[in-house]
Amino acid sequence: MQKVGILGGGQLGRMLLQAAANYPVETYVLENDAECPSAHLCRHFVKGDIRDYDAVYQFGKNLDALTIEIENVNVDALEALEAEGVKVFPKPSVLRIIKNKILQKQYYQHHSIPTAAFAVLEGRHQLGDWPHLIPGVQKLATGGYDGKGVQIIENPGQFSEGFDDHSVLEKKVDLQKEIALIVAVGQDGKTALYPPVEMVFNPNLNLLDFQLCPAYISRDVLWKIEAIALSVVRNFNSPGLFAVELFVDRNDDVFVNETAPRVHNSGHHTIEAHYSSQFDMLWRVILGYPLGNTKAILPSALVNVIGAAGHSGPVHYAGLEEVLAMDNVFVHLYGKKDTKPGRKMGHVTILSNEKQELIHKANGIKQALEVQAK
Amino acid sequence: MQKVGILGGGQLGRMLLQAAANYPVETYVLENDAECPSAHLCRHFVKGDIRDYDAVYQFGKNLDALTIEIENVNVDALEALEAEGVKVFPKPSVLRIIKNKILQKQYYQHHSIPTAAFAVLEGRHQLGDWPHLIPGVQKLATGGYDGKGVQIIENPGQFSEGFDDHSVLEKKVDLQKEIALIVAVGQDGKTALYPPVEMVFNPNLNLLDFQLCPAYISRDVLWKIEAIALSVVRNFNSPGLFAVELFVDRNDDVFVNETAPRVHNSGHHTIEAHYSSQFDMLWRVILGYPLGNTKAILPSALVNVIGAAGHSGPVHYAGLEEVLAMDNVFVHLYGKKDTKPGRKMGHVTILSNEKQELIHKANGIKQALEVQAK
Repeated sequence: MQKVGILGGGQLGRMLLQAAANYPVETYVLENDAECPSAHLCRHFVKGDIRDYDAVYQFGKNLDALTIEIENVNVDALEALEAEGVKVFPKPSVLRIIKNKILQKQYYQHHSIPTAAFAVLEGRHQLGDWPHLIPGVQKLATGGYDGKGVQIIENPGQFSEGFDDHSVLEKKVDLQKEIALIVAVGQDGKTALYPPVEMVFNPNLNLLDFQLCPAYISRDVLWKIEAIALSVVRNFNSPGLFAVELFVDRNDDVFVNETAPRVHNSGHHTIEAHYSSQFDMLWRVILGYPLGNTKAILPSALVNVIGAAGHSGPVHYAGLEEVLAMDNVFVHLYGKKDTKPGRKMGHVTILSNEKQELIHKANGIKQALEVQAK
Repeated sequence: MQKVGILGGGQLGRMLLQAAANYPVETYVLENDAECPSAHLCRHFVKGDIRDYDAVYQFGKNLDALTIEIENVNVDALEALEAEGVKVFPKPSVLRIIKNKILQKQYYQHHSIPTAAFAVLEGRHQLGDWPHLIPGVQKLATGGYDGKGVQIIENPGQFSEGFDDHSVLEKKVDLQKEIALIVAVGQDGKTALYPPVEMVFNPNLNLLDFQLCPAYISRDVLWKIEAIALSVVRNFNSPGLFAVELFVDRNDDVFVNETAPRVHNSGHHTIEAHYSSQFDMLWRVILGYPLGNTKAILPSALVNVIGAAGHSGPVHYAGLEEVLAMDNVFVHLYGKKDTKPGRKMGHVTILSNEKQELIHKANGIKQALEVQAK
């Protein structure tokens, strides 16, 4: 039985472990928080800092394989382990590129992968050097995640509020749709693409309202998206699971936004809606099994369950029973004891052949369920 | 967060724990084998004998609720716990009836639930007293499970091989189909029926070949089955999940064979094929949530993965890759280190709208996969 470690113990690890229980694998988790969502679903829990060289190296040195559920890990240790024969999904070389937004943009550029025009900055004093990139988006080179480390620079009046550090300034895309596509790459190099999903934003608040699968796009746009996503993952030359986030602009041009080299929030619907879920698929990749079937059983929508503004402390899911009483709806709560504003506490998947039902129920769930503190 | 204990740590517990990770619940498992399939997927594992009064009582006394994954538990301890306010699913009174085949048959008789004609025996010397029940099936009152403690008595020449203990002799039904139907009963008494499944036997070996859902039966037979199953569970007057096994004879008459007051092998297809799986449903019952949607997403077949004859020792799944390469197929292996002949090691679920594809793939899986010892 292969010994496989996961760096990080959040909800992605938790869902990986739920899927792992279908396969012959001995699971390990490294995470600093002994009460994290993954702590009690693995065979071996190791308390330690995934950013620390020694912690990661000691954790991994007797394992057959390692994967991650967050990019913020010690890549030096993973490289040392890889050199000693431990399989790492994705390869540490991929993590080095992805972890640094400058390297990631240069990677797309180097491989002629369409991405929004950009410049590399050393600090906010250079924001004025690139007038054609304004309005733009400034992203810190390192340390940003979940929307942190990213800000929109609409006009020169905002230059003084820009990040004063190594960063990327990229031209804002005239957005028609935001798409995510998950690709699996087997150890033999074979690839499997999931149908793309479409992010539906609340036009007032610019918040992700819910996500739909499949994305409602033309065949031409689909082909562009698939070609770009394949180009992204093939040039990494690494097995693993990759979530490619893309923009479609109002001319139907497609640009890569960024890539997560791991299971991803945009793939949670695959648990019920697809034959092989993203979690099942990553185990197939790691264990050297054939890739799974990415086809949808039914179209789906996904609603994230997010900590409400103004609520911090022990969590209470107001309206949960109403959601649980809905047909064709699957509730996943991640076992986090405390909520805080914006924290990802769970998700809800809806299955239906009818787009209107998906949207109707997604809205119903958003209205019914509020993540409060007790 | 409710504290809920499971008595028994086999594959049913394992799949319950996979489903539990979607809900706010603190899980406990009591089981003698620290390497059982459930040991590493629960929050708290307690090593102990589920048949022992003190072990069960100590395990349960600080919990909010208990359930079982096997009937062979200490019912006295569960009654004591129930008297102290611990919720038990199913009620211990149900377990007392189910655990004893004599009491179970008398229960059906008392409630006018159709079941095969029977007699209660003290030993094999009474087999000759009931000529109208021959050919018949003799079942030990207690201690039988998974086909043990049951034997067919075809003719008087076999009386001397009968069980010489308290037992039931029941008339063999002139079988057309064998059916299983799962019913959930909420704490508020509401019920939800899954579509019945049909067991397909190999006519040569009398082995369960695979199971199909929905069962291919007429509407009239369906109605009889549903009415009988509801009558079985309503008279128990207990919340929980119940698997009712029934015979349909060649006149389309329906008889209860037996009932399992718990999640059951005949419901494993519900994990992928139904909106609310049997495991999800039991958590809804225990946690006091609304019952789930029992409808099928797609028709399904289920193939059990059973230890091959002549193979005992560390398990090797020969042909696993071939099965994993099939579309629309879901593999579940239970994490048991050793195989032995007849041991349940896993199951495979197939989804398809076409009955012929279900049967074709079920046969393909049975031919491809063999559970060997290394």
